[in-house]
Amino acid sequence: MKILVINGPNLNMLGTRKPGIYGHSSLNEVKQYVADYFKRVKLDFYQSNHEGEIVDKIQQADQDADGLVINPGAYGHYSYAIRDAIEAVQIPVIEVHISNLAARETFRHVSVISSVCQGTLSGMGIYGYVLGVQALAHQLKKKDNEKH
Amino acid sequence: MKILVINGPNLNMLGTRKPGIYGHSSLNEVKQYVADYFKRVKLDFYQSNHEGEIVDKIQQADQDADGLVINPGAYGHYSYAIRDAIEAVQIPVIEVHISNLAARETFRHVSVISSVCQGTLSGMGIYGYVLGVQALAHQLKKKDNEKH
Amino acid sequence: MKILVINGPNLNMLGTRKPGIYGHSSLNEVKQYVADYFKRVKLDFYQSNHEGEIVDKIQQADQDADGLVINPGAYGHYSYAIRDAIEAVQIPVIEVHISNLAARETFRHVSVISSVCQGTLSGMGIYGYVLGVQALAHQLKKKDNEKH
Amino acid sequence: MKILVINGPNLNMLGTRKPGIYGHSSLNEVKQYVADYFKRVKLDFYQSNHEGEIVDKIQQADQDADGLVINPGAYGHYSYAIRDAIEAVQIPVIEVHISNLAARETFRHVSVISSVCQGTLSGMGIYGYVLGVQALAHQLKKKDNEKH
Amino acid sequence: MKILVINGPNLNMLGTRKPGIYGHSSLNEVKQYVADYFKRVKLDFYQSNHEGEIVDKIQQADQDADGLVINPGAYGHYSYAIRDAIEAVQIPVIEVHISNLAARETFRHVSVISSVCQGTLSGMGIYGYVLGVQALAHQLKKKDNEKH
Amino acid sequence: MKILVINGPNLNMLGTRKPGIYGHSSLNEVKQYVADYFKRVKLDFYQSNHEGEIVDKIQQADQDADGLVINPGAYGHYSYAIRDAIEAVQIPVIEVHISNLAARETFRHVSVISSVCQGTLSGMGIYGYVLGVQALAHQLKKKDNEKH
Amino acid sequence: MKILVINGPNLNMLGTRKPGIYGHSSLNEVKQYVADYFKRVKLDFYQSNHEGEIVDKIQQADQDADGLVINPGAYGHYSYAIRDAIEAVQIPVIEVHISNLAARETFRHVSVISSVCQGTLSGMGIYGYVLGVQALAHQLKKKDNEKH
Amino acid sequence: MKILVINGPNLNMLGTRKPGIYGHSSLNEVKQYVADYFKRVKLDFYQSNHEGEIVDKIQQADQDADGLVINPGAYGHYSYAIRDAIEAVQIPVIEVHISNLAARETFRHVSVISSVCQGTLSGMGIYGYVLGVQALAHQLKKKDNEKH
Amino acid sequence: MKILVINGPNLNMLGTRKPGIYGHSSLNEVKQYVADYFKRVKLDFYQSNHEGEIVDKIQQADQDADGLVINPGAYGHYSYAIRDAIEAVQIPVIEVHISNLAARETFRHVSVISSVCQGTLSGMGIYGYVLGVQALAHQLKKKDNEKH
Amino acid sequence: MKILVINGPNLNMLGTRKPGIYGHSSLNEVKQYVADYFKRVKLDFYQSNHEGEIVDKIQQADQDADGLVINPGAYGHYSYAIRDAIEAVQIPVIEVHISNLAARETFRHVSVISSVCQGTLSGMGIYGYVLGVQALAHQLKKKDNEKH
Amino acid sequence: MKILVINGPNLNMLGTRKPGIYGHSSLNEVKQYVADYFKRVKLDFYQSNHEGEIVDKIQQADQDADGLVINPGAYGHYSYAIRDAIEAVQIPVIEVHISNLAARETFRHVSVISSVCQGTLSGMGIYGYVLGVQALAHQLKKKDNEKH
Amino acid sequence: MKILVINGPNLNMLGTRKPGIYGHSSLNEVKQYVADYFKRVKLDFYQSNHEGEIVDKIQQADQDADGLVINPGAYGHYSYAIRDAIEAVQIPVIEVHISNLAARETFRHVSVISSVCQGTLSGMGIYGYVLGVQALAHQLKKKDNEKH
Repeated sequence: MKILVINGPNLNMLGTRKPGIYGHSSLNEVKQYVADYFKRVKLDFYQSNHEGEIVDKIQQADQDADGLVINPGAYGHYSYAIRDAIEAVQIPVIEVHISNLAARETFRHVSVISSVCQGTLSGMGIYGYVLGVQALAHQLKKKDNEKH
Repeated sequence: MKILVINGPNLNMLGTRKPGIYGHSSLNEVKQYVADYFKRVKLDFYQSNHEGEIVDKIQQADQDADGLVINPGAYGHYSYAIRDAIEAVQIPVIEVHISNLAARETFRHVSVISSVCQGTLSGMGIYGYVLGVQALAHQLKKKDNEKH
Repeated sequence: MKILVINGPNLNMLGTRKPGIYGHSSLNEVKQYVADYFKRVKLDFYQSNHEGEIVDKIQQADQDADGLVINPGAYGHYSYAIRDAIEAVQIPVIEVHISNLAARETFRHVSVISSVCQGTLSGMGIYGYVLGVQALAHQLKKKDNEKH
Repeated sequence: MKILVINGPNLNMLGTRKPGIYGHSSLNEVKQYVADYFKRVKLDFYQSNHEGEIVDKIQQADQDADGLVINPGAYGHYSYAIRDAIEAVQIPVIEVHISNLAARETFRHVSVISSVCQGTLSGMGIYGYVLGVQALAHQLKKKDNEKH
Repeated sequence: MKILVINGPNLNMLGTRKPGIYGHSSLNEVKQYVADYFKRVKLDFYQSNHEGEIVDKIQQADQDADGLVINPGAYGHYSYAIRDAIEAVQIPVIEVHISNLAARETFRHVSVISSVCQGTLSGMGIYGYVLGVQALAHQLKKKDNEKH
Repeated sequence: MKILVINGPNLNMLGTRKPGIYGHSSLNEVKQYVADYFKRVKLDFYQSNHEGEIVDKIQQADQDADGLVINPGAYGHYSYAIRDAIEAVQIPVIEVHISNLAARETFRHVSVISSVCQGTLSGMGIYGYVLGVQALAHQLKKKDNEKH
Repeated sequence: MKILVINGPNLNMLGTRKPGIYGHSSLNEVKQYVADYFKRVKLDFYQSNHEGEIVDKIQQADQDADGLVINPGAYGHYSYAIRDAIEAVQIPVIEVHISNLAARETFRHVSVISSVCQGTLSGMGIYGYVLGVQALAHQLKKKDNEKH
Repeated sequence: MKILVINGPNLNMLGTRKPGIYGHSSLNEVKQYVADYFKRVKLDFYQSNHEGEIVDKIQQADQDADGLVINPGAYGHYSYAIRDAIEAVQIPVIEVHISNLAARETFRHVSVISSVCQGTLSGMGIYGYVLGVQALAHQLKKKDNEKH
Repeated sequence: MKILVINGPNLNMLGTRKPGIYGHSSLNEVKQYVADYFKRVKLDFYQSNHEGEIVDKIQQADQDADGLVINPGAYGHYSYAIRDAIEAVQIPVIEVHISNLAARETFRHVSVISSVCQGTLSGMGIYGYVLGVQALAHQLKKKDNEKH
Repeated sequence: MKILVINGPNLNMLGTRKPGIYGHSSLNEVKQYVADYFKRVKLDFYQSNHEGEIVDKIQQADQDADGLVINPGAYGHYSYAIRDAIEAVQIPVIEVHISNLAARETFRHVSVISSVCQGTLSGMGIYGYVLGVQALAHQLKKKDNEKH
Repeated sequence: MKILVINGPNLNMLGTRKPGIYGHSSLNEVKQYVADYFKRVKLDFYQSNHEGEIVDKIQQADQDADGLVINPGAYGHYSYAIRDAIEAVQIPVIEVHISNLAARETFRHVSVISSVCQGTLSGMGIYGYVLGVQALAHQLKKKDNEKH
Repeated sequence: MKILVINGPNLNMLGTRKPGIYGHSSLNEVKQYVADYFKRVKLDFYQSNHEGEIVDKIQQADQDADGLVINPGAYGHYSYAIRDAIEAVQIPVIEVHISNLAARETFRHVSVISSVCQGTLSGMGIYGYVLGVQALAHQLKKKDNEKH
């Protein structure tokens, strides 16, 4: 099972940016942290500050991965291009946010991609990635079972 | 570890109400399904159609449980009374919705309780309860570790 | 044919509350007035000020009655819990308001339950109950005819 | 007792337009259907696609009829000219919509004429005309009784 | 000097409609009342309940009259067709309302034609027609003077 | 003189909930505190988390009390059922909020019950109950004087 | 007959400010222009840039004048203090604007004082003052006639 | 192939109304201009300032024409009656606007008929009619091909 | 203890302005009425129609008084200058309105100064001044006690 | 004549993404389809998921092409950067959308680039590209003619 | 070169009001601080809490000064009277705010005067006055150069 | 002292794009113009049309520069990604706009980055860059002084 985790803008600054909200782990450490939970999943971590690159990556993931976890960062609040890319691919997509968006600034209360994702997780800290991958794995197994 | 799962209005109709959206399991079956994942957690399932009873239950939970998972049903969209109750208790609270609210009617896009919960999960089907309890357990262990 | 008529909050004060708008008959008298029109219908009148009890009653009506007339009172303007209950049951539901809501305060112009009812009646005074029951009876007969 | 039933734009296409919503009867058949219920009422059916003609007809009805049932069609959502005409006449007016407007497009959720009608009926199919005429007849008899 | 006075929907009911607001004079009496003030002006009074006829009349007025006074009635609140007609003609146009619109229902607070008229008068009762014609005459004389 | 003080949801947690905002006294202590000011008034304190029970209580108060002080808690922001109950009773009603709602979250800035109360008090801490009862007593005496 | 004409902020700059919109006459010249039309009316012209002084002047006018014409300038768009003063006095008040507000910036489309004035005139240039005084004189004569 | 081109209010003034925006050709010249492009299409041009007549014409077109091009003029911004007529007919409909509505007044930014048309064209000048007819012809041929 | 009571625009007309709402007492009588309740408080009453003077007075009060009661009149609905002045001073401020603002015109439903006052009172008639002074005295005593 | 056709995000997925809406042709096939119509036009097709690259391309087109057709995809709904680029170039620009945006999700109803384009086409399927290029060619020839 | 610096309401409290936001210098000290930067500019500092006085001062400045720096304080958020005064004068005007308004309360996010100023500066602390005067001086020199 | 100046989309077209608004200097000339003012500051000018590249650059600037001036161009109106990058870095950031945004299109009135910048400058033409760098230098010196 291959799962891609896409991280949007400024998530490369994890660990130094607002640690009170986002925690003290770097993105690499987060990747390791998540990987430790899923020994049998091939886990790919990707980060970009570029909306277009994220759209490209989502489109490719349709070929390269079985499922997608996305933390869209700020793009989640206005990128209809990313929304359309998610809607266009066949693989299931789970949206994850580290912080509890509903408890922060008003512009973070709306996600334009949630409606085309399988589901959404927010406020669980970096453990949210673990839950997101797990939700995806559960979903993929269910589908797999239904086929057989 | 004692965890209370509160279910709001019409969730007693799980299994018969809109199975395309909410699935075919009854609330009792959901409870059993979740319990099978957490053998070592004392899991209490509660359902009420009454806003006031849910407020009462949340207040009591502060004494009776270590953490709370709540699927507020329709009350999540307007019950500031439930919101205030959650804000008033000390134990962590996780909000869970079976369906992906962002992909449904407009009135379901807003949850007035999210901002006072630890985090929110939506669109994972009944497996969302498993993830919610797991998130809570993770959170409680972390707190416990910090004490020692 | 069994028809349940549910009356929401403050409708137990019919006859004393704002008689210029709601008329001088008590709820009991209204029941008698309606029953006189439908000798062959088993008519049940129910009133509660409790949102949760109304949700309970609607759910039970799915077993106990052939159709439902509801005057939701003020709950019609914000109770998504009642809305979801109506949507969840199989029996047809007709919404009735005694006064002409469009000619009163702004908050009364919106009913969150209309879209899940069969139809809506407003401004006919207590005679609106007669029309509501009649509409329901007509609907039930039509369905019955289609079966045979 | 003379009752005029005014039908607004596109209601001359009843039976062919969106039969899933508006049914399979033509406007003439609807008229006959309603007339069969009220043998003793002199029933006049009128249809026009012209807002101005409808305003004219309402004004004349004040002389020519004892009451008015109006299905304003799309004009109900924006014609303040029709609204003012209804407000200007002395005879009672009942608004009828065949479909349940609250369950359709947003622009159909508002009726600018409801507040100046006696009452409103929606979602009862063509049987709504029967109920509308009946409501009007009831109203007229009540007034008549009060005079004597 | 030829001045046309166009009256919109329901103004043919002047004198009987809401006399507390619109006064007790019929439209004919109003015409006479105004004509008595302007012996040397050729005054034409026109009324229609039909939006299209009013558009036609405005277009013709560009040939037939030196100036236009319009009381658009309810059409003033939504008829962009009338607005465009006024904008398209060369002769000056003055908007008159008998009642003080700002003191009535919200929908009457907006006039979509004011911005393409020379000016607007409201709340002066039927004397507003006198002032409107006078304003127009003043305007036409000024233009005439500027030519010579 | 009998005065009923109704307290809405979560006010049973006074003293432990957000003491920085609501103070350190329990509801019982508040009652005693208020009673000490009004030795000659028969003061009844009631609290419920249930909207329906509050509606019931208000209706009964019309028989059982001379006046009503209500701290609606969160229900004040959306309960039109409570609003209608207050409007339906004859006795005067004063609305009291412990904290200054205008200085808190946006959803607390609107009270749907203020317009049907005699008056409103907010931001005075628990001393607001004293002022509320005093205002009511003053009002009742004035009425009493007017009778004689 | 004594009529006071109050001019709001920046109207002392008439003749130099935006002559394309407001014309080339100074406020003094406007006064003379208007006075020439009404030889028998005692006409008082007042201008202030101070909201409070305008409120004072309106209150005094109730004693000192038979009627009031007010061009509120920018205060017309937000001064509820001036609105309340107009509402509080007994003498009739006519609102005049030199330019056609509906054809200018959005903030000028709303006048908070119109609803408490007798009527409103806009877009007639400085001739609007003549019409305003005339409307007032007409109104005062009518009242006077009604007394006798 | 028979195509009807309906032109809404004030389009009979083409050539004289705002030539900077709408061009210098009269409606007749536009018709000739378009006809020259489509020698083999039976092209019918219709214009009316009357909303009701346009509704009538659309309904008849369902019998009389293979497709419809409509420039609704100002009615496009508020006529739900025309919208419903378009939705009710079977033939394809293309909406054409001469000017670029998005670059003009705000009220022109919304078309209430676009969602029930096949497609929309705006800002191409009178050449837009050519493109509209061509789009319709293309569509009709495609349908025709699919049948065979 | 020195307490200043500031009264905003048009409150100098108390007793003559809308006595049905504001009562029959003049501002001087109100002052005497309040003073009779607080023999030991040095009570200063101030009224101005000028926003700037009220700002000046609030700033001076910081030196000259122990607390401030303010009835801002219409300025309460838009004067951010007064709001900032209140926020800038150290002494406690209580806002009082004679009438129940929530039951009046929409523009009176918002007070821009409430959030920077200690608390707000509305709808108690002129007795509201008594309650306001009493609330302030209570507050000042509490502070004084905390110092000792 | 050189015309550039820019395609925004996810249009590289044409043929596989939502074929019910966007059709079964790949972008390359669309290019060929359009080119077949315009043998004498040098047609360049460009696609990118990157907003910045599209801005770059538009700027270069000012040198490299005579006209521009743009299907902005999702960027059309929020990219003011692309809007400003279009406004900054001298060559004419036509906006094309394959589907009828007005009949889809609300966020697709607004295009922030339309107001700076020459014109807009939507809902014509891939044939819309043909019409767009044709409109551009027509426009360019007209300009060319005006020069000579 | 003579430059006037106008300071709006509550800026006379600089140094004592919210020093965390506005700093510890009094307005006099700020004046000295700015003057030290511009030895060759005749700098006039003015402060008033009165909207009308600020309007007066701006009008006079047109005669008395070469340019104007204005910190409108709270009046910047609603004083259209000040806006109109700025628009009416010929000299250039620069708007300065000490704090970063975008990072404070919502009502401070809008300035109704910015659109008629030359430019706006905010968030630079009292150094903003230095930058404002410098911008003005730069502007005046540029104009002066263009003349010669 | 090293200061980076970031220029957003379409600013590479300075000098050719809308010179009436943005001036006739190219971006390189602007750089030279600014550098001439600050001989002792190491000034780096950067421009990109790519949102992602700007985010990258801001993040790097935290290491490479002492302060940042940003003219975000159109991205300032919607790029929450850039907003978050600015918030995430430690160095001070000043926002500069060449034109007076408040006097242009509505979409330019909102900047989503202002609240996380130190301050904002708009409408000063290219001299705004000089003021922006100067403000930054002042800020950096002040900080530096505070350290010693």
